[in-house]
Amino acid sequence: MSNDNNRSRRKFIQQTAIAGAGFVLARPLQIFALTNNKTVMSKNIKSRGYAGKDVAGQMVPWNFERRPVGDNDVLIEIKYSGICHSDIHTIKGHWGQQKYPQVAGHEIAGIITAVGKNVTKFKVGDQAGVGCMVNSCMQCDSCKSGEEHHCETGGMVGTYGTPEASSPSGITQGGYSNNIVVTEHFAIKIPKNIELKYAAPLLCAGITTYSPMMKVNFKKGDKIGVIGIGGLGHMAVKLAVFKGAEVYAFTTSPSKIKDIKGFGAKEAIVIKSAEDLKPYKGKLDFMISTVPYAYEMSPYIDCVKKYGYFTQVGQPINGELTINNFNMIFNRVNFNGSLIGGIPETQEVMDYCAENKIYPQIEIINASQINDAWDKVVNKEARYRYVIDASTF
Amino acid sequence: MSNDNNRSRRKFIQQTAIAGAGFVLARPLQIFALTNNKTVMSKNIKSRGYAGKDVAGQMVPWNFERRPVGDNDVLIEIKYSGICHSDIHTIKGHWGQQKYPQVAGHEIAGIITAVGKNVTKFKVGDQAGVGCMVNSCMQCDSCKSGEEHHCETGGMVGTYGTPEASSPSGITQGGYSNNIVVTEHFAIKIPKNIELKYAAPLLCAGITTYSPMMKVNFKKGDKIGVIGIGGLGHMAVKLAVFKGAEVYAFTTSPSKIKDIKGFGAKEAIVIKSAEDLKPYKGKLDFMISTVPYAYEMSPYIDCVKKYGYFTQVGQPINGELTINNFNMIFNRVNFNGSLIGGIPETQEVMDYCAENKIYPQIEIINASQINDAWDKVVNKEARYRYVIDASTF
Repeated sequence: MSNDNNRSRRKFIQQTAIAGAGFVLARPLQIFALTNNKTVMSKNIKSRGYAGKDVAGQMVPWNFERRPVGDNDVLIEIKYSGICHSDIHTIKGHWGQQKYPQVAGHEIAGIITAVGKNVTKFKVGDQAGVGCMVNSCMQCDSCKSGEEHHCETGGMVGTYGTPEASSPSGITQGGYSNNIVVTEHFAIKIPKNIELKYAAPLLCAGITTYSPMMKVNFKKGDKIGVIGIGGLGHMAVKLAVFKGAEVYAFTTSPSKIKDIKGFGAKEAIVIKSAEDLKPYKGKLDFMISTVPYAYEMSPYIDCVKKYGYFTQVGQPINGELTINNFNMIFNRVNFNGSLIGGIPETQEVMDYCAENKIYPQIEIINASQINDAWDKVVNKEARYRYVIDASTF
Repeated sequence: MSNDNNRSRRKFIQQTAIAGAGFVLARPLQIFALTNNKTVMSKNIKSRGYAGKDVAGQMVPWNFERRPVGDNDVLIEIKYSGICHSDIHTIKGHWGQQKYPQVAGHEIAGIITAVGKNVTKFKVGDQAGVGCMVNSCMQCDSCKSGEEHHCETGGMVGTYGTPEASSPSGITQGGYSNNIVVTEHFAIKIPKNIELKYAAPLLCAGITTYSPMMKVNFKKGDKIGVIGIGGLGHMAVKLAVFKGAEVYAFTTSPSKIKDIKGFGAKEAIVIKSAEDLKPYKGKLDFMISTVPYAYEMSPYIDCVKKYGYFTQVGQPINGELTINNFNMIFNRVNFNGSLIGGIPETQEVMDYCAENKIYPQIEIINASQINDAWDKVVNKEARYRYVIDASTF
């Protein structure tokens, strides 16, 4: 490492330690003059956030370190971080044993405050986001075709909880924190015409619903069903409506009906039992389920037309879902699961939402409210995405 | 009914009662002269077959009656009747409560011995078959498009066990018997260049595997996996091989390997545990499972390429299968079930197999051996389809 680089690193750390990204942004010329707009740091980045310490899943303040900003990395000063039901499932061990402390959060939006020397996609001061993955092999067919989440070698590196040698804590640590270091490829450009607080939920709730809907190539006027109108579901409704679909939203919460109509759904249907689904049997071209628990899927799948598709994006405890193959042989619906989307498609949904002003309905909270928000998410009380103000970490 | 018709009916019953269809066929001109090749009968048809009397599932001889041959019906003198694992599941109540006595059998091949006055598709003496259904509404979109098995009104009428007002026993009665009355539309023409004993298994094992394979439009050289190499599975292998696929056959029976290679499979793989499937992860374009019990599906589904299809045609007890959605979101495979095929497609596979000499590997048994054969089917000892010689009923 050159002396120049060492100087720039020291300067950077000094400045950000004093004043955070806001200070850096207030004086960009000073930094740029020193670093030619590139920063290389060999020391770990100090971070503070909220972590789960054990399977009980109480999130508590935690100071930790991230890897130094490498040649291909960017450092993002996080401004907003969305709360996803997956955070709760993961930290509480519902999807398998975890390492702790673990910082959740994979809907991350902020400002670039440092870039490695090879970085070309970002410059300091840019708006940037991080979704559900922070690395992959980039060599396999899936990675090369922009489906990094389907990396065929070791699999994608999740934004939190994935063992990673470069991480000082041994695992990746997520976005319930004040900053994050990530390979530039896995950072998403957030256009200037969308506020960061609205951009954050697009990085999971947006892409996770957008990706499978785009895969079915629905036409204007096609009937799309959405099951579970929470963080993901309400984005599915908004995106499908904007793309011209006739949207049927299925919820167990009567109190959401008015909102759902406001999102543009053709019908908002309160489901108390399988009987309530019968009028929709065989009527929908596509259906997406965001329900993050095991549930009686068959009467919902039956709502899809023959040879149509039903995509389950909600992930139940242990991943287990029961399918009744009697229904499947008669309804002849294709069932699949879907996990987020690749980086290019995540960029696509970000740009699409920014351009068309498709925003999640959010509620900003402080870090100290995370545990309460988690309870509300589980109890279906979120309206519809909690987003943490990262200045409160 | 005219006197002419009454005379022809009496004459017909008299003759068939004396000597069966063989006699009729030996003197066709005599019958034709009387009936102008059309037969109308107002009385029930006497049948003898093997029926299950209760959930214990022992098949015993039973004399019963079928409806009279109506204007649109044909009467088939059954020559051969295949044994399908579905017969066992149904009679033993594995798929729901049954009415008894019930005659199983939906792989039926025989000779037309009478035709109703409106019948145009068949004449007396023709080879004909009946598969898994004997009626449907014929008015809905599915019926009109040749997918009668997906009838959207009351659903298709199964060949046995479906409540039916016109049936003297109150339910449809299947092919473990010496004759059957069926609406001509639901009878399949069996070409002269295929022996009835080989034609019978095509009416379930053939069409059930052919239909979903044709739906995926595989190309020559595509890799197709077949799980469970029994009655259905061995037909899947033969059909896929003939259509130009590279076939990977997965079995739990090492004793079947030589046969499977003989059917033309590229590889025959003995599966002892999920580990044995790992080399095939993400390698296959399509996979069909004929396994008629619940099993650990995930490692098999994982063998299919991203965005490929996995079709489950085997029907487990109560239809319940467990899917692990963690696998599904990562493998991104489309799972579906498939139930037989429509009448046009059943005719298609019959014609295709006849023309190309694609025959099931069968073992002919007498009616008295049905219970023993059932045990062997359950114990994976069938090689590969038992076909009952209907002259022994």
